[in-house]
Amino acid sequence: MNKSDNTPELATLRHSASHILATAVLDMFPEAKLGTGPATDEGFYYDFELPRTLIPEDLKLLEKKMKHIVKQNQKFEKNEEPIEQAREFLQKIQQHFKIEIIDELEQAGESSVSFYKNGNFVDLCSGPHIDSTQQLKAFKLTHFSASYWRGDAERPSLQRIYGVAFATADDLKKWEELQVEAKKRDHRKLGAELGLFTFSEQVGSGLPLFTPKGAFLRDQIADTIQEIQAKYGFEKVWIPHITKKDLYETSGHWEKFKDDLFHVKGKSDTEFVMKPMNCPHHTQIFAASAKSYRDLPIRYAETTTCYRDELPGELLGISRVRALTQDDGHIFCRPDQVKEECRNIVHVIREFYTKLGMFGEGDYWVSLSVRDTKTPEKYLGDPKNWDAAEQYLQEVADEEKLNAKRVEGEAAFYGPKLDFQFRDALGRQWQLATIQLDFVQPERFKLEYTNEKGEAETPVMIHRAVAGSLERFLAVIIEHFAGQFPVWLAPEQARFVPVATDFIPACEEMAAELKKAGARVTVDTSSDSLGKQVRNAEKAKLPYLLVVGEKEAKAKSVTIRERGKEEQETVPLAEFAERLS
Amino acid sequence: MNKSDNTPELATLRHSASHILATAVLDMFPEAKLGTGPATDEGFYYDFELPRTLIPEDLKLLEKKMKHIVKQNQKFEKNEEPIEQAREFLQKIQQHFKIEIIDELEQAGESSVSFYKNGNFVDLCSGPHIDSTQQLKAFKLTHFSASYWRGDAERPSLQRIYGVAFATADDLKKWEELQVEAKKRDHRKLGAELGLFTFSEQVGSGLPLFTPKGAFLRDQIADTIQEIQAKYGFEKVWIPHITKKDLYETSGHWEKFKDDLFHVKGKSDTEFVMKPMNCPHHTQIFAASAKSYRDLPIRYAETTTCYRDELPGELLGISRVRALTQDDGHIFCRPDQVKEECRNIVHVIREFYTKLGMFGEGDYWVSLSVRDTKTPEKYLGDPKNWDAAEQYLQEVADEEKLNAKRVEGEAAFYGPKLDFQFRDALGRQWQLATIQLDFVQPERFKLEYTNEKGEAETPVMIHRAVAGSLERFLAVIIEHFAGQFPVWLAPEQARFVPVATDFIPACEEMAAELKKAGARVTVDTSSDSLGKQVRNAEKAKLPYLLVVGEKEAKAKSVTIRERGKEEQETVPLAEFAERLS
Repeated sequence: MNKSDNTPELATLRHSASHILATAVLDMFPEAKLGTGPATDEGFYYDFELPRTLIPEDLKLLEKKMKHIVKQNQKFEKNEEPIEQAREFLQKIQQHFKIEIIDELEQAGESSVSFYKNGNFVDLCSGPHIDSTQQLKAFKLTHFSASYWRGDAERPSLQRIYGVAFATADDLKKWEELQVEAKKRDHRKLGAELGLFTFSEQVGSGLPLFTPKGAFLRDQIADTIQEIQAKYGFEKVWIPHITKKDLYETSGHWEKFKDDLFHVKGKSDTEFVMKPMNCPHHTQIFAASAKSYRDLPIRYAETTTCYRDELPGELLGISRVRALTQDDGHIFCRPDQVKEECRNIVHVIREFYTKLGMFGEGDYWVSLSVRDTKTPEKYLGDPKNWDAAEQYLQEVADEEKLNAKRVEGEAAFYGPKLDFQFRDALGRQWQLATIQLDFVQPERFKLEYTNEKGEAETPVMIHRAVAGSLERFLAVIIEHFAGQFPVWLAPEQARFVPVATDFIPACEEMAAELKKAGARVTVDTSSDSLGKQVRNAEKAKLPYLLVVGEKEAKAKSVTIRERGKEEQETVPLAEFAERLS
Repeated sequence: MNKSDNTPELATLRHSASHILATAVLDMFPEAKLGTGPATDEGFYYDFELPRTLIPEDLKLLEKKMKHIVKQNQKFEKNEEPIEQAREFLQKIQQHFKIEIIDELEQAGESSVSFYKNGNFVDLCSGPHIDSTQQLKAFKLTHFSASYWRGDAERPSLQRIYGVAFATADDLKKWEELQVEAKKRDHRKLGAELGLFTFSEQVGSGLPLFTPKGAFLRDQIADTIQEIQAKYGFEKVWIPHITKKDLYETSGHWEKFKDDLFHVKGKSDTEFVMKPMNCPHHTQIFAASAKSYRDLPIRYAETTTCYRDELPGELLGISRVRALTQDDGHIFCRPDQVKEECRNIVHVIREFYTKLGMFGEGDYWVSLSVRDTKTPEKYLGDPKNWDAAEQYLQEVADEEKLNAKRVEGEAAFYGPKLDFQFRDALGRQWQLATIQLDFVQPERFKLEYTNEKGEAETPVMIHRAVAGSLERFLAVIIEHFAGQFPVWLAPEQARFVPVATDFIPACEEMAAELKKAGARVTVDTSSDSLGKQVRNAEKAKLPYLLVVGEKEAKAKSVTIRERGKEEQETVPLAEFAERLS
């Protein structure tokens, strides 16, 4: 998803590819009804109402038909028509979804519309398009899925066919290679190969269980964030995983999300729910004792698991789960502290992603979501606070050189926010860290502090996450590092491989010494051949493999095979220990 | 609950007190039906079927009547009677619960029974008793509660009246003083005063929320255990807080405990439950990959929250909660490794409680619960494994000098166990750490490992907890330390108190230096008077209070007021830093 790929020219090419797809679909299913077919970041899709459900083989056939259409070098011809005439035409060819679009255009005041024609295919379309089908040189249909007309589950069910299209065959090849690499790095595959997590039929889908290695990764991420955030004044708190529904009635979540919650019932009549977020609980800790302006800001942080009733079809490895552990934080501050607190969080985020090597130029971008001033009724809270907050966020973004993209109308109803999007090693983007201002919950929970004049005032609440969901974050970095974790993060940093079982005691002695210094090392005590031991260690993608034979055992040294390097070197154990730390 | 108090003589005195109580009750309610009235660790109780529910005032009245009976110096007289005659007598005085006891005695082969008489009161009783009521010199009725005949909820409801009795008035006075002290140390009171945890009406009862200070205590306990257990080969794992009920159908818990579980429902038909324990989940991590005899023992540990649907009336501060966090551990090992693994756990427990200062002589005792060999049908698993395991536990207890009390018939149906009971500063006993063998779950979950011969074998599972439930453990140590936590455990180790606001900067500078070295220190920046600041710091029960005036600010020193000490001393900051660490 390289941003520069999505130039207007490429978008035109991709949109034309969707017309060529529709041409092929109508050839295969003359009764097909056309939805819409836009360009996407990497290609295009088109929605159809079809007489039957597609099967994977259909994609091959359609691709073949598309290639044939490309070869025919059909010209794209634009034709402007009065609306009434256009409607009559669409009625004749029985495309009722397009008629719905015409109706809307008419209501919006249009008196004429444009059609694009290639070969026998005609589509209501504002264009632009490429000159002729032969210009589409590099494309591929990738998959299909169910969709709804206008994305509305109450409207007719459609089938969406996806494809990719590029300017050159070379670009397509690069994309295909990327897919192969992505498949190799798939966190579900690597998670199983490296023994990081598992699922149990008896526990349920979307509920991962983490092995010692996977649990280590979780802790290492959470502890690293904790270590950083403690320096910035965050204090850990602890809340239970359930609550009476009363808490969410006050916060307003009950009304909106009650159907997406896990409901909990015991012997009594009390209705409990599993928490899908932590902010309402944290307000109760804030509210537990009286606060003065001098006590603010108060910065709570907690790594805690939330539960969301995702549908089984939406679950994906540990990337989309029902038990998601958030590195959540909530700041309660005075309005005049908002800017400094946001800056403080930016520093936590920067320090963490810098440690991961993901904060270089081009590694990330930030969106600053502000309100749409044309629809003030959509936002709750004092407009003056909004103005100040949006300005603060902009200033922080500028001063911290975040190069933020301001997006009007993307703010939540309760406040503006900064979202951090990170690119992984394959260039894919992930929204991970976030800073969100909230003018609403403090009021709903009647939180207050006493100001300098002894009056009660409402604090501002700032929600923040650094990694977001630990599970999703782990999925991202497993794929980012292709399972080759940096030394500080690797659950197993090095493995001793004795050239013969005789040298196991020497290995264990040296391993014990490294462990004492905090290193995570193991010894292969199996009776496998040296070759097999080395291959096993390589499969485990360990940073270091330490071969020990007679020479090393005597000299208390190790022969290091570093991950990804051909040459080996023999160094004293002490030197290796230093390198590890 | 000093063990030496419970000498046979004292037990006799206390049992006689229960007769005197029953005498008083029959005087007040002539229609009362007598249940049973044994001695307890500190006194006695007696169960009655009464014509009305007791009110607190009744206790005063009954106590007065008892004192009157004591004064009358009624002799206790024993009278042996043939069973038939005894039954006729009990029918005459309409004591049907006693007749039920007679029937059982007859079935057990007794031909005669004994009665004890004092004044007009006669009770079926095997004795012994004191000579006369005047020997009861120091007693007190404490409270009453509901009970059932034979403790069976299906049998008639009774009312149980509790009292304490001691050999001397002095002993009673000591006991009363202990109650006052216990009340002062009540963890609910101290928890609120020290700001450690809170409850929210909107979140629900039994669901505590921990403030930064309380969360620190939780972490410090869990981290200390983790640091110790890591040395002994335990590896952390992570499991979600819910599961499909299938998991408990396999483990057998569903059938037994389904009514005590929190049931979880989402949009789908899947029935989830909140986990009330962790062992079944941990078996699924073990089962995730093939294991060989060389991989064992495998030691999983996790600090994770379980949920149990306790009735509101059973909840008590953080001592009895609905969200209980266990420092749970499960070892999967070969039968021949059981002894070594149990010893390993004993070492973890010893190291932890030694750090807390609770493992001195007399601070704890251990019960070794083995099976009742007369009822082998009550226990599952290979008797040979049981024999070996019980012997191993006994050997470990002996070799580790645990001075364990062997209790026949107290083993769980799935295996024998060692329970550690610790005495707190007030002499009260708490069952905290446990080591339990389990021959059943590995079979139910079809867990296996490959032995030396390449055959599948079933591992033994050992359950263990060091602190037990973190919440209950915190309640215990809050009361044990009366909120005066040792330096290593105190959330706030020291507070700087500037003699005037001018010295706040000097305090903050010194505080920053200590913090950098890992100390948990704060500065009182309020405008309160020095006296008030000192009093506040004393209320917070901090280990150290550091007064800083001109002299100290100049010399970079602090005047230390140590908790519980009268004298102050001024030392260089560096010296204090060293003392802290």
